[in-house]
Amino acid sequence: MVDVSTTSSRPIAGLDEVRELAQQLRVDSIRCSTEAGSGHPTSSMSAADLLAVLAARHLRYDWEHPEEPANDHLIFSKGHASPLLYAVYKAVGAISDEELMTGYRRFGSRLEGHPTPELPWVDVATGSLGQGLPDGVGIALAGKYLDELPFRVWVLCGDSEMAEGSMWEALDKASYYHLSNLVAIVDVNRLGQRGPTELSWDLDAYERRVRAFGARPLQVNGHDIAAIDAALADAGSGSGDGPTVVLARTRKGRGFSEVEDREDWHGKPLPAELAARAIVELGGERHLTVSGPAPELSGRPPRPDRGAAEVELPRYALGASVATRKAYGETLAALGARRDVVAMDGEVSNSTYAELFAKAHPERYFEMFISEQQLVAAAVGFGVRGYVPFASTFAAFFTRAYDFLRMAAISRANIRLAGSHAGVEIGADGPSQMALEDLAMLRAVHGSTVLCPSDATSTAALVQAIADRDGVIYVRTTRGAYPVLYEASEKFAIGGSKVLRSTTRDQVTLIGAGLTLHECLAAADTLERDGIAARVIDLYSIKPLDVQTLIAAARDTGRFVLVEDHHPEGGLASAVLEGLAETGTIELSVASLAVREMPGSGTTRELLSAARIAAPQIADAARSLLAAATEETSG
Amino acid sequence: MVDVSTTSSRPIAGLDEVRELAQQLRVDSIRCSTEAGSGHPTSSMSAADLLAVLAARHLRYDWEHPEEPANDHLIFSKGHASPLLYAVYKAVGAISDEELMTGYRRFGSRLEGHPTPELPWVDVATGSLGQGLPDGVGIALAGKYLDELPFRVWVLCGDSEMAEGSMWEALDKASYYHLSNLVAIVDVNRLGQRGPTELSWDLDAYERRVRAFGARPLQVNGHDIAAIDAALADAGSGSGDGPTVVLARTRKGRGFSEVEDREDWHGKPLPAELAARAIVELGGERHLTVSGPAPELSGRPPRPDRGAAEVELPRYALGASVATRKAYGETLAALGARRDVVAMDGEVSNSTYAELFAKAHPERYFEMFISEQQLVAAAVGFGVRGYVPFASTFAAFFTRAYDFLRMAAISRANIRLAGSHAGVEIGADGPSQMALEDLAMLRAVHGSTVLCPSDATSTAALVQAIADRDGVIYVRTTRGAYPVLYEASEKFAIGGSKVLRSTTRDQVTLIGAGLTLHECLAAADTLERDGIAARVIDLYSIKPLDVQTLIAAARDTGRFVLVEDHHPEGGLASAVLEGLAETGTIELSVASLAVREMPGSGTTRELLSAARIAAPQIADAARSLLAAATEETSG
Repeated sequence: MVDVSTTSSRPIAGLDEVRELAQQLRVDSIRCSTEAGSGHPTSSMSAADLLAVLAARHLRYDWEHPEEPANDHLIFSKGHASPLLYAVYKAVGAISDEELMTGYRRFGSRLEGHPTPELPWVDVATGSLGQGLPDGVGIALAGKYLDELPFRVWVLCGDSEMAEGSMWEALDKASYYHLSNLVAIVDVNRLGQRGPTELSWDLDAYERRVRAFGARPLQVNGHDIAAIDAALADAGSGSGDGPTVVLARTRKGRGFSEVEDREDWHGKPLPAELAARAIVELGGERHLTVSGPAPELSGRPPRPDRGAAEVELPRYALGASVATRKAYGETLAALGARRDVVAMDGEVSNSTYAELFAKAHPERYFEMFISEQQLVAAAVGFGVRGYVPFASTFAAFFTRAYDFLRMAAISRANIRLAGSHAGVEIGADGPSQMALEDLAMLRAVHGSTVLCPSDATSTAALVQAIADRDGVIYVRTTRGAYPVLYEASEKFAIGGSKVLRSTTRDQVTLIGAGLTLHECLAAADTLERDGIAARVIDLYSIKPLDVQTLIAAARDTGRFVLVEDHHPEGGLASAVLEGLAETGTIELSVASLAVREMPGSGTTRELLSAARIAAPQIADAARSLLAAATEETSG
Repeated sequence: MVDVSTTSSRPIAGLDEVRELAQQLRVDSIRCSTEAGSGHPTSSMSAADLLAVLAARHLRYDWEHPEEPANDHLIFSKGHASPLLYAVYKAVGAISDEELMTGYRRFGSRLEGHPTPELPWVDVATGSLGQGLPDGVGIALAGKYLDELPFRVWVLCGDSEMAEGSMWEALDKASYYHLSNLVAIVDVNRLGQRGPTELSWDLDAYERRVRAFGARPLQVNGHDIAAIDAALADAGSGSGDGPTVVLARTRKGRGFSEVEDREDWHGKPLPAELAARAIVELGGERHLTVSGPAPELSGRPPRPDRGAAEVELPRYALGASVATRKAYGETLAALGARRDVVAMDGEVSNSTYAELFAKAHPERYFEMFISEQQLVAAAVGFGVRGYVPFASTFAAFFTRAYDFLRMAAISRANIRLAGSHAGVEIGADGPSQMALEDLAMLRAVHGSTVLCPSDATSTAALVQAIADRDGVIYVRTTRGAYPVLYEASEKFAIGGSKVLRSTTRDQVTLIGAGLTLHECLAAADTLERDGIAARVIDLYSIKPLDVQTLIAAARDTGRFVLVEDHHPEGGLASAVLEGLAETGTIELSVASLAVREMPGSGTTRELLSAARIAAPQIADAARSLLAAATEETSG
């Protein structure tokens, strides 16, 4: 037998050793999940032979240097098979048996129930099915078109998750972009959580679908080590014009006769006694370590080169009419001087103005067509490779990718989203195109940044600022052109705000962002003619929030009119109230103006008025707050 | 020429007349969009021949009785082709030429930029691509399995939207359920918004994909009236074992040489002069009216029969430990005595307990596997047919369908969603499975209802109540079992709350829902031992909100501790603050306890403590609010 006791310059394991390794992976999947009292051992056992062959003989990975840019990528799209993934980590010496046994699913441990990048070898969090493959498409795009490194992206997929449309968005884009560096391995064990899958073991049906979507299918018996070895060698060769999908016929719980291919064993650890019998049947515990092949072309610089070019932001003349979506596109094109900036769009780049980047930097622009889940996943994938991705579409259509945004946060991904055409502002197209939930949706994402600039100058400054900011970042832009409010030299901090009108005798504060700020300014003018001094705040940073400025305004004026082109729940008003609540006390008279009825079509002005978020209604709301106070005083 | 001046018992139009009709549809699409100054005439013109043949010769529809249950259904999945749809409505006499010309895209008109059910002939709102076909699957499921009526569901699809994964979820389910009553007509005009589509005119590529997904493809020249007629006759025959997809090769802007098959004409009305030339080239204005075939088996009762059976709710003993997800399943199974109740689930019915319904009423249970977009769309479709749909999955995975939820509101759909396994409560599975954004997401849906019951009795009562409630309704259930708090006779109003602890000397109010209510109760016990009287409110109805009870509590105690197993943005705390803000004034000391850091795995108790939403921390927060007040008084 080959000596496998050292980790460096070991020979590649032979097939007999791989067979032993596969049994070890099964045993360890059982051991750690039984010890934890939860987990998915049977979903791990079906894919153990596949992973044993992959890890021992095909995955080019320097386990001591997960940051090595030339490493292959390994993604468990079926994230619930985490026992198998962690058993592989043990087998390559990345974690100890002790960590596996005491850490799995434990509080404070990095070996979470589903993989997250708390582990240095994990690129993206998985566990919501149908996301690992789309994320892998983004990584493979970076590898093929930007890094130009020969790494491969291997994605272990479940058969159940092939029912998610996002998997087909991924294969579609992978074939469109000729991603021969992408290999999906589908563990067709025919059993989902509650029973058989739609297609069971009909591998021919999977093959027809995969082939029709432009991928190269390879059918294999997922428990025949030699056959798997041949299939993975072929799959990883980069031959063919697009991605390869290895369709592996497997049996859930493979290797332990009491659970193998049985229903009702999904997501259940084996009770201790059963686990003991399983381990005996699997040939007992083993502690083999193996090392796969080394990465090709290793030792190159670890990150995309930012490039030396200076970014020269567009400048806008005070008072000029500019749509903030246009300012977004112009700024993005300017940022493209940095060679780490990449952009993508969901087939509306002539509306979002991402087309300006596409024209200036075609080599770093990726059209994702109408598939918003893949759009966001591609951004996550570019982020994994160290790029600075910007993804854009209509603000409303990011709702299509909310599960991906939520998971992006768990992936600790750094991605930037620009949503245009938000709110009733868009006018005649009607409610299907109006984002009226986007601020609520994005605010609730952990660690997110939510920006809603009101003019071109602030848009340019903020879009530049987010290029160097972490997390899931969202910028809402306006469809219409509105006056530039700020000199080009003005600074805009994320988490800041601007007080645009202020006197020592302010009686009320009007707060807006985007178009509603312009309405607030107009309302303040009206009120001033009536002798009412109104403070006006440009709340361009919805999250994080400039609580200090709000506290000062609450103290000085005692009255807030909050105005947003958004449904009343979870948006700007909510952010302000939550922010003040964080101080421990709220004392405030407040009117919240938002879109409370279902809008239809119309002009922007008609719809603003109908929603009661236009300047006259803002002024009315302010007067009502003042009248209520007078009444109270005199009453 | 056939006399087409009357609407009743007219003969079916011949092909020559259909050719004329197609030109009329083009001319009207141009006229109304030019008049409106916006819209998508070229996307209408490509599909005009298809719709002329369909409306005149195949669509079985009684236009005077859109409520007729035997009518075929016509859905424009490519909702931006609304000019064409409305031109069809004019051609069948449903709307006047005047309404078309003065109403299209105008404020207050029912002829919105994208179709909505403000029009009696529209089943579902479209305009977010990739939704009409999944919605159609739900309608076809109802037709085949429940209504047992021979109506067909015709869905006009764009080629661009075939990039949305949801379209493939739809075809997958349509073939799985053998929906031979469903016909998708794909208008392959090769041009998207900003340029060519991925597959251009490669109809063979579409055919391979469609066939692989179990549908019957029919290729046709989309401008050959006779060929279309033959294809639609075949498609609508119900022959074959599954859905039919008519792949029509067309030219965008067909019929006007200055725009036909040209880029940069998406979503743009023709300027008046160009429109005039186009109308000349198309042979001038026409005002034909046609009437297609009558529905088969018309005159049956219009709605699903609710059935006479009495619903007997499950009853739970006070203090017994019951997971609210289990109470959901038991109540749903009981509600199944009503023959209008249908249920579906995303392959986790043994976790959500929808399996109890599936076992009791298998004929009204539909497994949607792991495709949450199709899950929600199926519910919308059942609702179109008058059923009372309940859809369930893990709460986190409804984020996958947020665009569908948003559009369901615009569709005025009545659907009920149950999300289990929310928050850190779920424990070891980790953050990918923890809904921490669901309350924010669902609250922001227009007209939604958001419920978070804390015990089995209230769950049963509320699940029964929502069966007769309109809109998008969401119930969050607990994974774990917690004590039953209420007698079976207790009443629970939607929009209500329960005050579980109350004295005349309450110094602070603790507010929770779901698991956090139990933590609030435990905290109140602790505080009582310290001599601090705490009011406790079960805020089971997050939207609508019981503002009166909150106002009373704010007045009586002046201090709120708000506790939620959710991110701090947009959830329970936000709802309370927004609700109080609606009264015009907030004066309150407040502590908001929510999940502020990214959780990992662990036990429920470990994770509650780490998130600082467990009883001891609630008690601490209450004490801090009291101490701050004392300080202020003494300071």
